[in-house]
Amino acid sequence: MCQSDRVTATSPQPRPSVCVLGLGLIGGSLLRALAATGRPAFGYNRSEATVAAAAESGFDVSTDLVATLARAAEQSALIVIATPAPTVTAIVAAVAEHAPRCPLTDVVSVKQPVADAVHAQGLSSNFVGGHPMAGSADSGWAATDPALFDGAVWVVATDDGADPHVWRTVAQLALEVGSRVIPAASDEHDRAVAGISHLPHLTAAVTAVVGAGEGELALRLAAGSFRDGTRVAGTKPSAQRAMLEANDIALLNALSETIDRLTRARDQLRDEGSVEILVDDGHRARKRYEQINASADVPVTDVVIGSHGWEAALRDAARRGGVWTGQTRSANPG
Amino acid sequence: MCQSDRVTATSPQPRPSVCVLGLGLIGGSLLRALAATGRPAFGYNRSEATVAAAAESGFDVSTDLVATLARAAEQSALIVIATPAPTVTAIVAAVAEHAPRCPLTDVVSVKQPVADAVHAQGLSSNFVGGHPMAGSADSGWAATDPALFDGAVWVVATDDGADPHVWRTVAQLALEVGSRVIPAASDEHDRAVAGISHLPHLTAAVTAVVGAGEGELALRLAAGSFRDGTRVAGTKPSAQRAMLEANDIALLNALSETIDRLTRARDQLRDEGSVEILVDDGHRARKRYEQINASADVPVTDVVIGSHGWEAALRDAARRGGVWTGQTRSANPG
Repeated sequence: MCQSDRVTATSPQPRPSVCVLGLGLIGGSLLRALAATGRPAFGYNRSEATVAAAAESGFDVSTDLVATLARAAEQSALIVIATPAPTVTAIVAAVAEHAPRCPLTDVVSVKQPVADAVHAQGLSSNFVGGHPMAGSADSGWAATDPALFDGAVWVVATDDGADPHVWRTVAQLALEVGSRVIPAASDEHDRAVAGISHLPHLTAAVTAVVGAGEGELALRLAAGSFRDGTRVAGTKPSAQRAMLEANDIALLNALSETIDRLTRARDQLRDEGSVEILVDDGHRARKRYEQINASADVPVTDVVIGSHGWEAALRDAARRGGVWTGQTRSANPG
Repeated sequence: MCQSDRVTATSPQPRPSVCVLGLGLIGGSLLRALAATGRPAFGYNRSEATVAAAAESGFDVSTDLVATLARAAEQSALIVIATPAPTVTAIVAAVAEHAPRCPLTDVVSVKQPVADAVHAQGLSSNFVGGHPMAGSADSGWAATDPALFDGAVWVVATDDGADPHVWRTVAQLALEVGSRVIPAASDEHDRAVAGISHLPHLTAAVTAVVGAGEGELALRLAAGSFRDGTRVAGTKPSAQRAMLEANDIALLNALSETIDRLTRARDQLRDEGSVEILVDDGHRARKRYEQINASADVPVTDVVIGSHGWEAALRDAARRGGVWTGQTRSANPG
């Protein structure tokens, strides 16, 4: 097959208005970030205090879910579910009732359970999930930040059978707010975040508890290793639980492996006075992370969204360091 | 007992020259920090490369341990042992042979094993241990920093029977380089750092290993929780092992408690789909740490070093938030 070297933008993508459901840290920051790019956007939150605060900042927001969805349907808006994981089933049911034809995505921290909820409502053909890997220990509208997604990884779910048009609409949203789009299958995403995002909350928590158990003097001696190693344990417990418990199967596996490795480390320390294996393995893993983190993104330019097998091709490219930038090296028709 | 409100410096403390044995991150930074205060200081390191680098920076250093100790003996210098924990026994033996009358301290990360090694050489009456709670993931002379101790906690071992003169000499050294002096018993220190410094290395390591086990894609998705939670796993493995293995008994206890708590969390997640207990406990512990960390130091001014029971009085004060600043509220003789 002959390909030219010409790099072009993919076919012009419409920029539908965006309807953000849930105005916490992620949803609220998204509304702010979209406003900064000039994209028409409006939002919903069930809390009157949050809506009052967002309205005071000049945003177009409401506590009326049905009215908000009716407006989304009228405008064929892209709907973004940004509510906590335990509420997703109810929100998806409302979307199915009031805006069943709108393109639909989410920014929830697990992907397979959201895809399942969407499937149960018959909305799979409108839906491509997403997950911006951004956050902070703070939460709520007061913590929102229009720059939250700048340079962050935004996973766009790339499961077999995804609608190419919706996929591009969702990827475009992520690019527009400055994120780096990484395509991944929903279940692959959930296993990955169990290891690199959800487990770190539990190891931070247990480190905090055992350290604090040594008393006030110990906490006064605590320096950088404790400060950094326990930081995310300070996140609001309800937010942590919503995230971790929604990914329970993958997290159970990661947690069991953690316990096994720590038990082997304890046995080696007790029997040989050594922590060599865990310290060496940990050092290697951390260095690999630093290396990967320092390496430049590789734009994926040889996959045409919607072509045969594009989903698997994108996933493979991402596993080798690829990011989607919206640029495709066009095939040469000659 | 009637006390005046007059706060005075303790009896003028001589400022002996300082002999630093070991010029890694801590020892080298100490030599730099002392030079910045104008205190006469010289150093030893067994590596010719390190000594060449330090000499090139203008420091008075040598690879000859015996000659360095002979010079310390001649000047009645304060000797600071700053070599890795596994080398301490041999270094203390050399001090006993060549400089048995010098005041002696150390900056090693465990206190009881060093005190035991000193006791075995009959040097206990010259010795007061210390531990600056400062460091970084980097090591060696190239990483040294004269500001490393600025605002850091410096534990000064305060065991029953400590020589008051040596204690003041060591505390003065820590104050001079900008540290906050916290008195603690050697065994109490070792239990505390097992929880807040040594265990965090193992939880960071296991978090890194399990996360990296999910593959390159997972590491590319890793955000703040993984970055901060695994940072200290990047420390040179030999430095981590020297520190952790020297504190094996206390670390075994902390590690066993960690495994127990993670196992209970796994059981709760498996049986109830909940991580409530560990997440809530971790949040409470982290908030307590933040609160203690934000509270102002309380200067201990009502303990006269060398008075009856001063060691226990200092330890008690430190457990309630006290730091030693070198100022004592003098007793009113009337």
